[in-house]
Amino acid sequence: MYENISDALSALREIEDRLFAYGHAIGVLYLDATTAAPRDTFESRGRTMAVLNQAIYDLTANPENGALLAFLESNAASLDPQARRETELFRKSYDQISRIPPQEYVDYGVLVNEAQSMWARAKEEDNFPLFAPYLEKIVDYNRRFAGYFNPALKPYDALLNEYEEGMTTETLDAFFALLRQELVPLISRVKAAPPIDDSFLFAHYPVAEQRKLSDYLMDVLGLDRLHCGIAETEHPYTTGFSNLDVRITTHYFEDNVASSMYSVIHEGGHAIYELGCDSKYNYTLLSGGASMGLHESQSRFFENIIGRSLPFIQCIFPKLRELFPEQLQGVDAEGFWRAVNKSGPSLIRTEADELTYCMHIMVRYELEKQLIDGSLKVADLPEAWNRLYREYLGISVPSDREGCLQDSHWSSGSIGYFPSYALGSAYGPQLLSAMEKELGDIWGDVAAGNLSRVKGWLGQHIHRHARLYQPGQVFEMACGKFDPSYYTNYLKEKYTKLYQL
Amino acid sequence: MYENISDALSALREIEDRLFAYGHAIGVLYLDATTAAPRDTFESRGRTMAVLNQAIYDLTANPENGALLAFLESNAASLDPQARRETELFRKSYDQISRIPPQEYVDYGVLVNEAQSMWARAKEEDNFPLFAPYLEKIVDYNRRFAGYFNPALKPYDALLNEYEEGMTTETLDAFFALLRQELVPLISRVKAAPPIDDSFLFAHYPVAEQRKLSDYLMDVLGLDRLHCGIAETEHPYTTGFSNLDVRITTHYFEDNVASSMYSVIHEGGHAIYELGCDSKYNYTLLSGGASMGLHESQSRFFENIIGRSLPFIQCIFPKLRELFPEQLQGVDAEGFWRAVNKSGPSLIRTEADELTYCMHIMVRYELEKQLIDGSLKVADLPEAWNRLYREYLGISVPSDREGCLQDSHWSSGSIGYFPSYALGSAYGPQLLSAMEKELGDIWGDVAAGNLSRVKGWLGQHIHRHARLYQPGQVFEMACGKFDPSYYTNYLKEKYTKLYQL
Repeated sequence: MYENISDALSALREIEDRLFAYGHAIGVLYLDATTAAPRDTFESRGRTMAVLNQAIYDLTANPENGALLAFLESNAASLDPQARRETELFRKSYDQISRIPPQEYVDYGVLVNEAQSMWARAKEEDNFPLFAPYLEKIVDYNRRFAGYFNPALKPYDALLNEYEEGMTTETLDAFFALLRQELVPLISRVKAAPPIDDSFLFAHYPVAEQRKLSDYLMDVLGLDRLHCGIAETEHPYTTGFSNLDVRITTHYFEDNVASSMYSVIHEGGHAIYELGCDSKYNYTLLSGGASMGLHESQSRFFENIIGRSLPFIQCIFPKLRELFPEQLQGVDAEGFWRAVNKSGPSLIRTEADELTYCMHIMVRYELEKQLIDGSLKVADLPEAWNRLYREYLGISVPSDREGCLQDSHWSSGSIGYFPSYALGSAYGPQLLSAMEKELGDIWGDVAAGNLSRVKGWLGQHIHRHARLYQPGQVFEMACGKFDPSYYTNYLKEKYTKLYQL
Repeated sequence: MYENISDALSALREIEDRLFAYGHAIGVLYLDATTAAPRDTFESRGRTMAVLNQAIYDLTANPENGALLAFLESNAASLDPQARRETELFRKSYDQISRIPPQEYVDYGVLVNEAQSMWARAKEEDNFPLFAPYLEKIVDYNRRFAGYFNPALKPYDALLNEYEEGMTTETLDAFFALLRQELVPLISRVKAAPPIDDSFLFAHYPVAEQRKLSDYLMDVLGLDRLHCGIAETEHPYTTGFSNLDVRITTHYFEDNVASSMYSVIHEGGHAIYELGCDSKYNYTLLSGGASMGLHESQSRFFENIIGRSLPFIQCIFPKLRELFPEQLQGVDAEGFWRAVNKSGPSLIRTEADELTYCMHIMVRYELEKQLIDGSLKVADLPEAWNRLYREYLGISVPSDREGCLQDSHWSSGSIGYFPSYALGSAYGPQLLSAMEKELGDIWGDVAAGNLSRVKGWLGQHIHRHARLYQPGQVFEMACGKFDPSYYTNYLKEKYTKLYQL
């Protein structure tokens, strides 16, 4: 069927071009839906999403791809590493998608589009039953998809693999067990320590000034505004269409300056990853970050390890004082640093402190497992959620809006994504250690607002590779085999110092 | 090939579904490009546009459509009017697009995407040579396309037909000649009259307050915000994806309150049309307004006939005073009405008064004709532009930014569109006359801010039909054969009263 490798590669690249385009269009429709679209416009968007999803499906599941892949695979030795990896990733999609019945695939796209609108309304109105029927269907689809993706795995493991290749509940159970063992005593000691005053973070911070702060933070992060935009959404996220077009979003709360501030730095970390991918991977299957876990390792590296460090706060504090002179009267950089690191049980994951954050993830992890294995019904989700928050965080959930309706992930069909946040958090300190081994001290740079060496190191070791390697490979090449004790040691050291334990 | 009409119609509707989706995606990409996208992101968007344009091309030019159309046409007597018109419009696209070579069609999409970015930069930097090579290519493409569209017509006539079926340079030459004959003396008399004081319109009007004014005006126009959004762009426009999802844009100038105010009302008129189309035409080729001229008749009806009437100003003036108490100190409704109707030669089409507006169109009409027939080179456009502004409006153009770079139309590939504005303006007073014949006086309603009868009449006679009929048919059914003397009489009456001539 194919005369030579070059023809076959052209055929593959043409498919990739079209997959990029349909994905880009869907991404922009989603961006519009979450940033600008009037509320009741989902019908039209749903139809378009359905057609575009159908086009992706048709393009990927096309039986002719079997011959193309077989030809490329039989010539794998003659392919360069990029073409080999493109073949490998297209094989994975082809095998997975070929197993999903066409109509199911399209219907799911429509469902997810509607579910997102409904979730937004349900959250606004604190009305879980409005969203429940959609979530039920999403869970059903995901359970079925898991079987299509990898029938050899337990359904939840198959879903995990979508976000982090090679990840299993076994590994995660052990990982969370270690965190629990190391961190629960630390959390208790922090609870017993004299509380940190962070009341000034909750003064009135007008949105207009917060927008200026976002611009400033994007400058400090070195985000190129000609290629990176910022918008406002219910729930912050990042979307990258290529290394030339990346968007981050945030949500301003007038009574909480740290919320958007750390959303911008977190999403900025994602954007730095996307913008740092090598241009040669644009418009191919290798475009963008290697995995959700690795992506979160970058966002949380900038959010917590850099953004919540004392040197970083010392660097940005003059700007904070300039923008918010009244709100920060009598506060110094060290006081601000303590405040943004204050630890304690809380309701909202995205507002959680670095230390208790993983407890929020554990709640979601447990519930997702149960939803997928059928031991938990969607109707019982709010109760189960509230129970686990009491159990893990000792806290009562006053409303579903601040409970199981708080995150957008499930409404967008992402089940098995949450653990990536915990993994991403745990990857950071090990990366930092390797970075410091190579670069020496980085904190002088951070204090001076010069992140170029830090970004350069991450760019060299992580970002530029995009999806050329499996995430585990990228991580190991950068800093060796994953060892979560770097993370627990980092937290112990940081919180011991912070709370003078 | 087709067993029965129902199968053939299903096949047609499936094509229409996909055409809608690709068009919707392109529309949202354009919306993003003009409202939110970072500046240097056109490469990625260009690739996606190219793929989507290719998909539209493939879908439309597919030779199998020939058989489908032949089958439907041979059964035309058994089709309902909607299906018959869908067939007719698809035939027109099929014939036209089948004549454009595939690569040319796709390249043009890429060109137009880049041209828009370049135009925006060129305008910002007042640098016509930056945009010129793009405009040259756009003119060349349009000249070739004209030949593909309708080789029997003169090229410019073929382009006109894209925007207003049946329109010719002959008709337009006569139409403009009449306007010149009737309006030039009126313009002279106005020029000689004591000038109107409109200085207060150019006080400092903060954007935040102007945004509130936009919201208020959209309320007065009865635009359903659950289905109609507003955004900010360099050049205001309206885009409708269905009667459920319409977006208008505006541009705020802090030193000119009337600019955005009348953009919102103008685009609001377009939006009322799109929102008023019957739902049964959504997602078909009959979706949206019947022609550009008819569309402009609605936007300019609301902008000028309603929006610049004394009763409307009396209705909204309390709100204006509330939002801008200092800027409007000592001004009353009548003074405001006079100010927004002040007439005189000006540089910027979108800021032009109702009376001189058509002169701006005439400049563009003459230049477009010459660009397409090759008697004017793009390089000589600025000079020719400036010469005509002196000739028709007696005004010197100080920069290309305020001259031939002011409008986005040419950069988006629209040549032959401008005359629609003049036609649209001329349609309005004839519609008004028919409306008043049926409804009696409407100005009491307008003064009370109740536009429901006015909108109801237009909805009944114009909007709901969408593209079921040819634009000329819709217009004639609503108010009889087109007679531009309604327009000239309306202007004479209005300006005689306004300037007490």
